[in-house]
Amino acid sequence: MTIHSIFITILFLSVGRAHNNFPSRSIYKMLVVQKYGGTSVANPERIKHVASRVAEYWEKGNKVVVVVSAMSGVTDSLIKLAKDIIPTPNRREMDVLLATGEQTTIALMAMALHSLGVPAVSLTGPQAGIVTDRSHSTAKIRNITPSRMRKYLAEDYVVIVAGFQGNTEIGDITTLGRGGSDLTAIALAAALKADLCQIYTDVEGVYTADPRVVPNAKKLDEISYDEMLELSSLGAKVMQSRSVEFAKKFEVIFEVRSSMNNKPGTIVKEETKSMEDVVVRGISIDKNQAKITLVRMPDKPGSAARTFKALGAASINVDMIIQNNSPETQNTATDISFTVDKPLLKRAIDVLADIKSSTGFAEIAQDDHIAKISIVGVGMKSHSGVAAMLFGALADAGINIEMISTSEIKISIIVNMDKADEALRVIHAAFFPDTKK
Amino acid sequence: MTIHSIFITILFLSVGRAHNNFPSRSIYKMLVVQKYGGTSVANPERIKHVASRVAEYWEKGNKVVVVVSAMSGVTDSLIKLAKDIIPTPNRREMDVLLATGEQTTIALMAMALHSLGVPAVSLTGPQAGIVTDRSHSTAKIRNITPSRMRKYLAEDYVVIVAGFQGNTEIGDITTLGRGGSDLTAIALAAALKADLCQIYTDVEGVYTADPRVVPNAKKLDEISYDEMLELSSLGAKVMQSRSVEFAKKFEVIFEVRSSMNNKPGTIVKEETKSMEDVVVRGISIDKNQAKITLVRMPDKPGSAARTFKALGAASINVDMIIQNNSPETQNTATDISFTVDKPLLKRAIDVLADIKSSTGFAEIAQDDHIAKISIVGVGMKSHSGVAAMLFGALADAGINIEMISTSEIKISIIVNMDKADEALRVIHAAFFPDTKK
Repeated sequence: MTIHSIFITILFLSVGRAHNNFPSRSIYKMLVVQKYGGTSVANPERIKHVASRVAEYWEKGNKVVVVVSAMSGVTDSLIKLAKDIIPTPNRREMDVLLATGEQTTIALMAMALHSLGVPAVSLTGPQAGIVTDRSHSTAKIRNITPSRMRKYLAEDYVVIVAGFQGNTEIGDITTLGRGGSDLTAIALAAALKADLCQIYTDVEGVYTADPRVVPNAKKLDEISYDEMLELSSLGAKVMQSRSVEFAKKFEVIFEVRSSMNNKPGTIVKEETKSMEDVVVRGISIDKNQAKITLVRMPDKPGSAARTFKALGAASINVDMIIQNNSPETQNTATDISFTVDKPLLKRAIDVLADIKSSTGFAEIAQDDHIAKISIVGVGMKSHSGVAAMLFGALADAGINIEMISTSEIKISIIVNMDKADEALRVIHAAFFPDTKK
Repeated sequence: MTIHSIFITILFLSVGRAHNNFPSRSIYKMLVVQKYGGTSVANPERIKHVASRVAEYWEKGNKVVVVVSAMSGVTDSLIKLAKDIIPTPNRREMDVLLATGEQTTIALMAMALHSLGVPAVSLTGPQAGIVTDRSHSTAKIRNITPSRMRKYLAEDYVVIVAGFQGNTEIGDITTLGRGGSDLTAIALAAALKADLCQIYTDVEGVYTADPRVVPNAKKLDEISYDEMLELSSLGAKVMQSRSVEFAKKFEVIFEVRSSMNNKPGTIVKEETKSMEDVVVRGISIDKNQAKITLVRMPDKPGSAARTFKALGAASINVDMIIQNNSPETQNTATDISFTVDKPLLKRAIDVLADIKSSTGFAEIAQDDHIAKISIVGVGMKSHSGVAAMLFGALADAGINIEMISTSEIKISIIVNMDKADEALRVIHAAFFPDTKK
């Protein structure tokens, strides 16, 4: 058999596989998982726009899995409907309700691809084989059985999967909580061993700082999982931490990019040697923190532990913690400061008031007019002088630092809210002088 | 063990079964399936109203399964969304899309019951174990595995099931087509061997005629399946025929009643001896028909067969068929008239034009300005004079009859649309003189 005749045979088989009058291809280049968020699929027009992007990838000979969110606004409307009925809806039923949002999008996206002559089929989270635990509204993915997706991919379909949802082993519908669609995309990429995972969003990638505050912020070509984790959990808002953690755990390399243009985005992957050459990757700002200070906490074993145990029991996460023994109190007592999410401040104060007498601190001070700024970079490990440069920049601008906390790859500071944006800009200018305007 | 101690034991077991802080009961009276249509659940307020009705039944010690439709308007909005994307959406994807409508209602209904302290759980059609064939958008129920519903009922939950939907054996979402929620309710009542099946709607039951046209029409206490079938397929619009056929086949007695008040509705059941005492049960009107006449069809074997085969192949249902040999043509040719659904008239004319030369009729006449009126009653079988009374009433009013067709339990006539409502009123007055105002 000559190569020529083999080629004809392949062509013939390929034609034999065609159905629904859709074109079919015998070989493919890559398996790509693409995720489009609510803004990208907000209305029929945008859905058609996304479909044309998907079609482009498919037409180039790639296998494509598309994960979609609910059309923007839909989830909020559903929540409003539920709240009109009962103030705190049952979480199982809330999941049944919210899951309709993504289910609507998958059907419309499949139709939009059909209108372009591309074979496409929709699958809900449960149909895609996504099994979660039973924590309704914040479910964790337990396992994925990708056989149904694989079957459709083998038949050359574009497979559209509803993000944000799955089901329990007994078939109850669950949702994955905030950022759940990103998680779905990354988990599917892992389960299918995809060659590429693209998270399409309304920003062009990850920036050295929020471009709305720092207009000359620079888009990053690549970033390590750990840097991304620090940046996302610290308010960069591009992605939820747990999606990045999941990607890190299962070594899924993904790209954050815009659905509005064709520019390459930011690749998120395991850190490489060359990444360490960059000392600071990015600077994030978080205006959603509040600071609590426990004044004159007795300096004896167990006091701090009891305090944070009580907060933990009330599901209040504590972020930065600073303790500074004061010579004034002759080392018998100390002030402890920490930050909590601003919406949880009142609850935290209530919890602390309850344990005030048993723990023995003198008083509780609070401040919700603060912002946290963090500079992040894996290169920080091997470079000194980062803190010095940071403090110098702020001192030059006359901005006071209220708290400082450091880790291997980041330095976080608390400043007054009124100075927050200015602080971000002067720090950015100090660490990225080449982008200074 | 005394009776007293048995009673205490039962109470104890009953308390032991309680959960979620919901009250629990040890015995129950009846298993009731209730179906509420789109108008009854159109908004959160109406959903709460329905929930309070359901709660009443539950509190009286009944087990309750509630079948709900999509909130009115929702299905139309979803169809519009789809049509904005593609003129003829793929039917599999349309089912995925439309199924979200009922899924939304079940979650909200469960929440509304929770707000009244009633334990309730929602199930989609697939979760309720409803398996259908693969005819997307017009799926037929193949079987129902009620184990999950039974489990929840045993635990004293009100079970809310999404009407109109099921899934195929491989788990593709299907919908049952128009009137599908009624069908779901009746099928569940059959599968669960329910004691009562109630179809709640926006009318108070089945009337002797449409009350909007005949203001003194009387609500019927009961009606036989066959009468209901004739009335519903003839435009009474209370229910789709196939739900009634399904009920007849599985001997499900059901009640059509209003969700707006507490009045008893109309019981639909197998005919009884006493039913035959009533000659005419009701009179329906259908303004959705058009009449076609094939002029001078050659009177030879096969001509008519070929004609109706061609229409059948084009999925055009033919209703009344009248053939009348004319002495004028010396029995070599005949006129054939029949009626079709008005929206299919154009397609029917096209099909007939194609076979005109091969079939040999001279011309095609059409009239879409007609209405069909049918009088229905199982008692008709054993009474004569019904037709005479009908024709007399119309003659007295000077209304011309264009076509007549009879069956064992009904007589249908075609009149000019302009005279339709008047015809309905005079016929009603003739057969129901006691309700004459």
